[in-house]
Amino acid sequence: MRGFELDPRLARDTLPVMPLGLCELRLMNDSRWPWLILVPRREAITEIHDLPPLDQTMLTFETALVAKLLKETVGADKMNIGALGNIVSMLHVHVIARNAGDVGWPGAVWGVGTAVPYTAEAADDLVRPLREKVLAQ
Amino acid sequence: MRGFELDPRLARDTLPVMPLGLCELRLMNDSRWPWLILVPRREAITEIHDLPPLDQTMLTFETALVAKLLKETVGADKMNIGALGNIVSMLHVHVIARNAGDVGWPGAVWGVGTAVPYTAEAADDLVRPLREKVLAQ
Repeated sequence: MRGFELDPRLARDTLPVMPLGLCELRLMNDSRWPWLILVPRREAITEIHDLPPLDQTMLTFETALVAKLLKETVGADKMNIGALGNIVSMLHVHVIARNAGDVGWPGAVWGVGTAVPYTAEAADDLVRPLREKVLAQ
Repeated sequence: MRGFELDPRLARDTLPVMPLGLCELRLMNDSRWPWLILVPRREAITEIHDLPPLDQTMLTFETALVAKLLKETVGADKMNIGALGNIVSMLHVHVIARNAGDVGWPGAVWGVGTAVPYTAEAADDLVRPLREKVLAQ
């Protein structure tokens, strides 16, 4: 991990899912949408374009894989992918499963209302099949 | 182009900048933020993970290049990158230059207020140096 330490706000707002090759995969603790976060284990990077090219490719691969598997797992209409970082500057990529008529649809989810945390059981029900699909790749 | 035709809403809301290897590069016609759109010239694709792997890599390369050059051109604090597609399903990637204190900061820009179109001169003042930087790569 070479000194990588997860931003405290990301740590507080998310639950661990599993490590991937480049990224820590985490679940946003907000049950209103199935919402994953990928955090590259790289220090002091805030922009995708500041990653070395191989890391950019890995990040794309891991983001696309996770988006595909989350969409399959929860049966979403559309995936929303974003790297914003206006509040937490540590580079992180959002992968959010959206459905027509969900909270905030068809707008973006950032800044909408207040997070509704998962129960431990509900988080596990979402994370377990996703983790199995990733490991089966 | 093999039958690729830009979605009419994207065509209406944006101005042409230049073609890249995979994507059409366009400027969102909203002068509140420097905001580019990359549209892969591929038919019937709505999700990044549905692109073939080489196209995914190209899209990442072109997105990162454009983000880096736009950030240099306008001197932004943070780039926001997103692929949402809840309203226009044709795959397109947003690259938005953000500054602390701009309209909507630190929230996302999607759905904020009403677009303020560029004058032809103002659009050209933004696009010309960007186009030169891309061609110099």
